[in-house]
Amino acid sequence: MLIVVGGPEGRPGQLEVSSSQAQRRGVVQEGVESGSWKSAHPAPSPGGHVLRVLTAPPPTDSPSTCLPTSRLKRSPLKVRFCTNESQKSRGDLVGLLRRLGFDISEGEVTAPAPATCLILKERGLRPHLLVHDGVRSEFDQIDTSNPNCVVIADAGESFSYHNMNKAFQVLMELENPVLLSLGKGRYYKETSGLLLDVGPYMKALEYACGIEAEVVGKPSPEFFKSALQEMGVEAHQAVMIGDDIVGDVGGAQRCGMRALQVRTGKYRMGLDDFL
Amino acid sequence: MLIVVGGPEGRPGQLEVSSSQAQRRGVVQEGVESGSWKSAHPAPSPGGHVLRVLTAPPPTDSPSTCLPTSRLKRSPLKVRFCTNESQKSRGDLVGLLRRLGFDISEGEVTAPAPATCLILKERGLRPHLLVHDGVRSEFDQIDTSNPNCVVIADAGESFSYHNMNKAFQVLMELENPVLLSLGKGRYYKETSGLLLDVGPYMKALEYACGIEAEVVGKPSPEFFKSALQEMGVEAHQAVMIGDDIVGDVGGAQRCGMRALQVRTGKYRMGLDDFL
Repeated sequence: MLIVVGGPEGRPGQLEVSSSQAQRRGVVQEGVESGSWKSAHPAPSPGGHVLRVLTAPPPTDSPSTCLPTSRLKRSPLKVRFCTNESQKSRGDLVGLLRRLGFDISEGEVTAPAPATCLILKERGLRPHLLVHDGVRSEFDQIDTSNPNCVVIADAGESFSYHNMNKAFQVLMELENPVLLSLGKGRYYKETSGLLLDVGPYMKALEYACGIEAEVVGKPSPEFFKSALQEMGVEAHQAVMIGDDIVGDVGGAQRCGMRALQVRTGKYRMGLDDFL
Repeated sequence: MLIVVGGPEGRPGQLEVSSSQAQRRGVVQEGVESGSWKSAHPAPSPGGHVLRVLTAPPPTDSPSTCLPTSRLKRSPLKVRFCTNESQKSRGDLVGLLRRLGFDISEGEVTAPAPATCLILKERGLRPHLLVHDGVRSEFDQIDTSNPNCVVIADAGESFSYHNMNKAFQVLMELENPVLLSLGKGRYYKETSGLLLDVGPYMKALEYACGIEAEVVGKPSPEFFKSALQEMGVEAHQAVMIGDDIVGDVGGAQRCGMRALQVRTGKYRMGLDDFL
């Protein structure tokens, strides 16, 4: 998950409050081994707004890792959480993070499921849902009868052969197959180890059907822009920090934001460096 | 599945014996609507060898569809079956086809599992197998302890989230991850409808790990060449016929063979035409 932090009073030095902890966990920045907060893009011009992003720890981490968030919330900076979480509703996600000590409200979260619902309504799309049961409630107000598209999210164990075939068959029956994917992350880290995210399954359906999915969530520029708009800052005023070199860092950079990668979470030396 | 037919005495007209039946089922050839056996490449020079390929019906088809095969087997042409079947061992596949009336022996089959075993032995690879139980016996002589590669085949219901994660985790633990895929077909047709083949799952692992799989089977040129070598004919002497525009037609053409696509099996108007 990504925590977006920013505001009109921001300047590059302000986030040093959390850098020592981040460095203990192994901060890595593009072109920088470690040791300082240095973005992949040039620093903003003097007086410019700064928007920053930090990775949040996974829910199983110690509550002490919430400290940077708390200190940022007490600063003049705006805080926003940009997540590709698609196994839980926003309410469940915020509830979990609050129990872990995070100072966060549902209104501060930019998540792909609500963004997808807006797209579905705007375009008159009725989805076949290949999603985790935990996020299904986000689609309660969506007509899913006689599907004319497929929505895929991080479905976890629901990524069975049977369910993948069903989604595939729905797409193949459509004259103009539409596949919406809530993110395209490659994998994430749980206590049990690395687990496949929605991206690989999105790629599987793309290949099987000869189509290209529409990604809702990071690294889609539209998703980053919606988070910036909700905060009232411009892309060049923002720095993003995440553990996913593609979804967090690459997506933010293509959107005109500065970006940092941390060596926490699913970061893997070598593989990400190569990318 | 693909039936390769050819031999030194072959000439283009000889296969007309089976064309009427093929036309009833809807033969399509590149650039030709229907009606005649015309390849996508120029005809071979007079006196040249001719190698031809027909699609076999799926095992559930009527035994009457075996007729073209029987007539070809009685001709001076050599016959070879090139298949990406990776749910069954060659023995089981041939047994099934014989019960359906096909005149076929195990020695006439070029299949990806035996070819993969040769590669594994040559390169000292110990695979983690993500394969269907029906083909596992082909790997009985292979050391699967302490895996240093992953072999993926059409695993059917074994393409569970758990099993996909296991294969992914094995690859991510390797310094130089090697993924061997028995074919890269997109889908195939069963009586229950279209089902995902190994290709989409290969693409999923490729994307998750940031690697490229080595494909054993159609459309790999090495696979077609091995079939040609086993028959003692050159690529330019061959015509291939299959229902998969990528695996059968495209692969054969890239290998220097002529190729025909039939409108049987999984052929789908529009999608394949676009490709």
